[in-house]
Amino acid sequence: MPEGELRGWLALRLPQVEQALEAALPVRGAWPERLAAAMRHLVFPGGKRLRPALALASAEAIGADASRALPMAVAVELIHTYSLIHDDLPCMDDDALRRGRPTTHVAHGEAQAVLAGDALQALAFEVLLGAPGVDASAVCFATQELARAAGPRGIVGGQVDDLDFDPTCADAKSIESVHARKTGALFVCAVVGGARLAGGDATSLRRLRDYAERLGVAFQIADDALDADGDDACSYLRVAGARGASERAEALLHEALLALEPFGARAEPLRALARMGVRRSE
Amino acid sequence: MPEGELRGWLALRLPQVEQALEAALPVRGAWPERLAAAMRHLVFPGGKRLRPALALASAEAIGADASRALPMAVAVELIHTYSLIHDDLPCMDDDALRRGRPTTHVAHGEAQAVLAGDALQALAFEVLLGAPGVDASAVCFATQELARAAGPRGIVGGQVDDLDFDPTCADAKSIESVHARKTGALFVCAVVGGARLAGGDATSLRRLRDYAERLGVAFQIADDALDADGDDACSYLRVAGARGASERAEALLHEALLALEPFGARAEPLRALARMGVRRSE
Repeated sequence: MPEGELRGWLALRLPQVEQALEAALPVRGAWPERLAAAMRHLVFPGGKRLRPALALASAEAIGADASRALPMAVAVELIHTYSLIHDDLPCMDDDALRRGRPTTHVAHGEAQAVLAGDALQALAFEVLLGAPGVDASAVCFATQELARAAGPRGIVGGQVDDLDFDPTCADAKSIESVHARKTGALFVCAVVGGARLAGGDATSLRRLRDYAERLGVAFQIADDALDADGDDACSYLRVAGARGASERAEALLHEALLALEPFGARAEPLRALARMGVRRSE
Repeated sequence: MPEGELRGWLALRLPQVEQALEAALPVRGAWPERLAAAMRHLVFPGGKRLRPALALASAEAIGADASRALPMAVAVELIHTYSLIHDDLPCMDDDALRRGRPTTHVAHGEAQAVLAGDALQALAFEVLLGAPGVDASAVCFATQELARAAGPRGIVGGQVDDLDFDPTCADAKSIESVHARKTGALFVCAVVGGARLAGGDATSLRRLRDYAERLGVAFQIADDALDADGDDACSYLRVAGARGASERAEALLHEALLALEPFGARAEPLRALARMGVRRSE
């Protein structure tokens, strides 16, 4: 699937995601309006919605309708957003801008930013557990993936090691370990959880996990390479330079695509998303 | 069950909770040791473990073994601990001491305190979803209770309204609404979720929910009354004075105990925990 076709695919499917995110995060609802505003700040407008797209494309790869993975798509986007809000806090990366707009703590105050993040994490679980028409064991499986990806072995553990990263003893393995947890875990959750909600069997899930693990690390290495200064402590550029980083990202992309072979044409959106994610120029 | 007997009951059951918390939070494990230390800081030693005790007592009220509610007991304690860590942060209540020891951000730094709280929330879900030998629909039900209690309609929403509370227009209803979310929601989750894991039917769960909702608010009003200054903006003392607060707490306790009548002698631990929680003198 060429990039133009992928754009058409996304244009047809992402409005569903926006609608589901709106339904999950009403401006006025059963929670304080001030909290709702802080929770919505970084969700609308969002970024590229890559993680939700991966969840939907994964459902299609096993021959199911994309909409069956919608609760997973929403849940991973809420977790991703909460982690960005907390990463931006003054006590962490202390960023004032995100996607060209004030970060949540700048716009709503630090207390509300902490609480909005906390609430988005809980809401992600609530949305996923409320997935309509899915059998309980599939919901449990997908929710367990989410809990692991979000927790100390996933995003949070990756962030701790990233903050502590000592560039003087950086090696490819330790950098990829941070990338796998900080970025890869949620990719895996989107892809594997999305397919499980859509009825995927164990063999399909294993292959999709192989794909998503490699893609997560490749995506983050590509991210490192786009950061021209490469001044992050935990950057692949430090150990391999721009060319080495690009080669490693391509090698992982190749492995990710290999894992998709048995799915045939149905996995074209997953393939196109992987190429787009790793070969970004912006 | 007189208080002395309750102490014996707790002495027999709480070691199980400590053991399960230790198993959930190893010093060395699959996550960064620095994160593990920050996550453990406020869990060990903990407080009275009232919420875990409620979960176990609730399983016994429906005639089941207390241990069947153990995953719920651990999950509510982890959520409770995370919420205390974040409430203590400089941008919220800015407390340096908790239970006579340095708060997590004082001992481990602010970034680690935010991340430890985030990780404890995710871990609570992971522990509950891994409940062994429970059918998936019961696990889903209990986890959904946890997500609601922890989220914007529960603890976080209550904390936002508490931070924003305007004492000049305080009334009993708005104070009880904050108490119901900030404190009551997790009591309900412990009791109802614990009973559901242990095999409770819909009728039992409805009665247990009535009990726990009332107990949560009564417990927090008793807490207000123990704060002799009553200088919290959102304190029942403001609208009813010490005597009015004590009367309201007793009335709610009475209603809570009424809801337990159909359970007979099996609910004695739940009754004794309610009396102890509402009639504290420390």
